Amino acid sequence: MTAPAPFRYRRRVQFAETDMIGIVHFSVFLRYMEEAEHALWRAAGLTIARPGDETGWPRLAATVDFKSPLRFEEEFDVGVRIAETTRRSLRYEFTITRGDTAIATGTITTAFVSRRPGEPMKALDLPADIVGKLRVAAERSI
Amino acid sequence: MTAPAPFRYRRRVQFAETDMIGIVHFSVFLRYMEEAEHALWRAAGLTIARPGDETGWPRLAATVDFKSPLRFEEEFDVGVRIAETTRRSLRYEFTITRGDTAIATGTITTAFVSRRPGEPMKALDLPADIVGKLRVAAERSI
Amino acid sequence: MTAPAPFRYRRRVQFAETDMIGIVHFSVFLRYMEEAEHALWRAAGLTIARPGDETGWPRLAATVDFKSPLRFEEEFDVGVRIAETTRRSLRYEFTITRGDTAIATGTITTAFVSRRPGEPMKALDLPADIVGKLRVAAERSI
Amino acid sequence: MTAPAPFRYRRRVQFAETDMIGIVHFSVFLRYMEEAEHALWRAAGLTIARPGDETGWPRLAATVDFKSPLRFEEEFDVGVRIAETTRRSLRYEFTITRGDTAIATGTITTAFVSRRPGEPMKALDLPADIVGKLRVAAERSI
Repeated sequence: MTAPAPFRYRRRVQFAETDMIGIVHFSVFLRYMEEAEHALWRAAGLTIARPGDETGWPRLAATVDFKSPLRFEEEFDVGVRIAETTRRSLRYEFTITRGDTAIATGTITTAFVSRRPGEPMKALDLPADIVGKLRVAAERSI
Repeated sequence: MTAPAPFRYRRRVQFAETDMIGIVHFSVFLRYMEEAEHALWRAAGLTIARPGDETGWPRLAATVDFKSPLRFEEEFDVGVRIAETTRRSLRYEFTITRGDTAIATGTITTAFVSRRPGEPMKALDLPADIVGKLRVAAERSI
Repeated sequence: MTAPAPFRYRRRVQFAETDMIGIVHFSVFLRYMEEAEHALWRAAGLTIARPGDETGWPRLAATVDFKSPLRFEEEFDVGVRIAETTRRSLRYEFTITRGDTAIATGTITTAFVSRRPGEPMKALDLPADIVGKLRVAAERSI
Repeated sequence: MTAPAPFRYRRRVQFAETDMIGIVHFSVFLRYMEEAEHALWRAAGLTIARPGDETGWPRLAATVDFKSPLRFEEEFDVGVRIAETTRRSLRYEFTITRGDTAIATGTITTAFVSRRPGEPMKALDLPADIVGKLRVAAERSI
């Protein structure tokens, strides 16, 4: 059983995100989820990417389950929680809702890597201080 | 001479809007301008598009002049003003700034049309009540 | 074990699809997968959406697993196969490769619905003739 | 008077490029124009951006005039010509057509700059060899 996501990111559907069916295109949900992830990082006093960074957080996997469509100008919330961490991966869980209506759920799994110019990308252990700050930010917002 | 745009829409750069150069892709500026347009409509108590509408506001032209790049997570303002209306067209002017830094200026020119299923699109005179409400909303926000 | 996807859609990475890390943004992979789906429909002599359609193919779920990044101007292939159908759902499996390099795998699960103006969307049984044509098109291309 | 654009890039409208009005979103036309620009560069044996480049081609301005909408799965051509060069800027002109139907025209004006890490971007004179190769590629394709 999944507890309600504590950290919430509020967003409004923009016109360019709709498709000819009149609803938000399904690929846009990954962007909504990522926007919420980055809002969580900011709430933790962090930023996930800076020019010249020699480390990064590439995605290993993403999933979305669609319950109900979103339409132009609707406001919705994206809840984020840190569902699981291993030594080298972190999985966020997202819950998208419009008022009481379930819109979608999803996950993004990321790794932490070094990416120096001219060298192959290399998986690193997750930095404990960053993961700790993200957890605090997620819980603080309950 | 152009007076400063009175209505302002605040936005933050999202990660997916950046490109491999590390700045917001130039095509995204048209989306920022359109988002500000629609925020002005909402401020006027209006919405530019509803499912089943038999009229619409297609674009006749758009321009952007780029002064300075935007980067991930930067906050910026999009000012909007109604620069000119003719019987059958309306031109918005946009001024994008980040604090005191000029980022871009642009225009969107729109028409008003009937678009009934099975009939060709037909230009109509702009509805005076809508244009009036947009003008009031733009000025009220000074 | 999954046999290699028989139907292939070839594509080149466009500049606007990259992000500040210098690779294709992860949300774009859902678009690549959908483009391949629609190419399969065309190969079957079908089109998935026409203006005024009173039925549609909304997405129930999507997943992507990322193996290796894609960069600007690289050419890649998206293989599609129909992995599973139930009475009311169809799951495509996608395999994205660049030459011999595995880039990503993914799935899209769709339903078939009626969507008449003013009525709630309603799940329908999948039309057997369409599913049959998609299967033939997928196999013909081996 | 503008001669017909000699270099042509063929493209099909993808589903995710449509909006709730059922036509290609107007911001997408800048992407179509840029895709044609990059196809011209490839035809000239060039690539406009490589990881680690210390020079770049930022946009100074872009314009689009819309004549007729594009819809899902329609095929269209983007013609490109080099309309004007000054010492420090190059303006492309684009003509988008679907068969005999005029869809849109547009321009992109670019500069050439040095962009070294830690230094401010600096305008440079256009490299004559690159401009020469682009001209040859554009004319060769008549």
